[in-house]
Amino acid sequence: MELIAENRAFGGRHCRYKHAASTVNCEMTFAIFLPPFASEDNPVPVLYWLSGLTCTDENFMQKAGAMKLAAELGMAIVAPDTSPRGDDVPDDSDGAYDMGLGAGFYVNATQAPWKTHYQMYDYVTKELPELIESSFPVTGERAISGHSMGGHGALVIGLRAPERYVSVSAFSPVANPTQCPWGEKAFSQYLGEDRELWKEYDAACLLAQKQHYVPLLVEQGHADQFLNEQLKPEALVNAAQQSDTQLTLNMHEGYDHSYFFIASFIDDHLQFHASHLGLI
Amino acid sequence: MELIAENRAFGGRHCRYKHAASTVNCEMTFAIFLPPFASEDNPVPVLYWLSGLTCTDENFMQKAGAMKLAAELGMAIVAPDTSPRGDDVPDDSDGAYDMGLGAGFYVNATQAPWKTHYQMYDYVTKELPELIESSFPVTGERAISGHSMGGHGALVIGLRAPERYVSVSAFSPVANPTQCPWGEKAFSQYLGEDRELWKEYDAACLLAQKQHYVPLLVEQGHADQFLNEQLKPEALVNAAQQSDTQLTLNMHEGYDHSYFFIASFIDDHLQFHASHLGLI
Repeated sequence: MELIAENRAFGGRHCRYKHAASTVNCEMTFAIFLPPFASEDNPVPVLYWLSGLTCTDENFMQKAGAMKLAAELGMAIVAPDTSPRGDDVPDDSDGAYDMGLGAGFYVNATQAPWKTHYQMYDYVTKELPELIESSFPVTGERAISGHSMGGHGALVIGLRAPERYVSVSAFSPVANPTQCPWGEKAFSQYLGEDRELWKEYDAACLLAQKQHYVPLLVEQGHADQFLNEQLKPEALVNAAQQSDTQLTLNMHEGYDHSYFFIASFIDDHLQFHASHLGLI
Repeated sequence: MELIAENRAFGGRHCRYKHAASTVNCEMTFAIFLPPFASEDNPVPVLYWLSGLTCTDENFMQKAGAMKLAAELGMAIVAPDTSPRGDDVPDDSDGAYDMGLGAGFYVNATQAPWKTHYQMYDYVTKELPELIESSFPVTGERAISGHSMGGHGALVIGLRAPERYVSVSAFSPVANPTQCPWGEKAFSQYLGEDRELWKEYDAACLLAQKQHYVPLLVEQGHADQFLNEQLKPEALVNAAQQSDTQLTLNMHEGYDHSYFFIASFIDDHLQFHASHLGLI
């Protein structure tokens, strides 16, 4: 693990690291915010943040305005990259923003040429937490959140592995990717043409299958340019009703898909996770 | 004036506009944050934010985390660009980041080829406030702040025109530009070789000349990579002592030149300006 940047922030530290990642067979970069007073004697829980299409580990740390409250609450934040990276990692042949680099969709790809590197589900749920928990003054308590493609990732991961995350939230998630253009494009290439297999990576499908007990919070803007074609939050509500699962979906008049929306409501999500992590 | 982007944020609005600017003879872009409840019946004061080298109107709005408290305080924020822009605006012949485009240094240039467009002092102190005050629900009460080159700009403007700004602050300002490489390079080209004329754009020189009564607050990180060669905050302290002017300089162990530093302390500056603007 190699430190590539470090900034003091809100009395704590924002750091970026590179490391050789075996699940995705390449060098990966992640960012971590450690609140003040985090130490071996005072380890802190971790909120994992999964970013959306085209993002890296940097967007959330620079734009969300999350560090101030995280510092007060005593919560670390870890932001991984959104796909494998490097010269030998395949990209979309047309360089599209919604496939390949920057668009890993947090799945384990089964199809060529993707499967060698695009194992983002395993990277995010296993390899990265193991590295974080063996390298930094953190507990094994984890929460997970994300935006757009990363909101999809957070919901899918939290619903599939609730024993590993105490609470799950999302901003503007791709809620039903088996039924929208972004999801159909990515899943057909990463997972192949059998649509049954896609359902393991679809939050609405997972939510409908059985009753879930992990706390779930979703934030969505009404003025989001991707709302009707790509995001489909109503699918989450229908699925939660079907399985009798508790889900809070807050709709916000006038808000769009940008980080201005995330910044406006991130503190509510930090408080939500802090309450389930026992910090407040 | 043409609206080019609008985002709801913290119950208010973040907007970007283009307009034909006569002082700088080109089209300029600025950003404005209007807090909730700002209206013709409830006009709000304005904090002008001047950004540093290479920045545009976007950096502060996306990275400083200032909108939350500005929304609560009822304060608008206006962020202009850092130089004139456009195909016929001259740039540094080597495309250097510290001269020409993105590096207007908030001066009125007197030398060719700069003087036609590089009139940023007049743009920021006159044309832009006139436009803001005739177009938006704001009062004529102004405060000014900025970062690095923009911290220099804010201090110089506030010291030269205290009747127009109720309070002045800066993060990591270029405090004594007549005595540092960035300032010497820019001033020799924009203002010519007569160093006496440069002093009108040097905060430390202006501060030393006479006692000033405008409230002054400066924030500086000890780990700032530009501290000793370019920024020289000790020149401000010496000048303030010389003229018996009150100046608060807060030095912060471990903090660098980045927006993580600004974000960590921006709320203190908003409170400082709010107190002088009569908002608290």
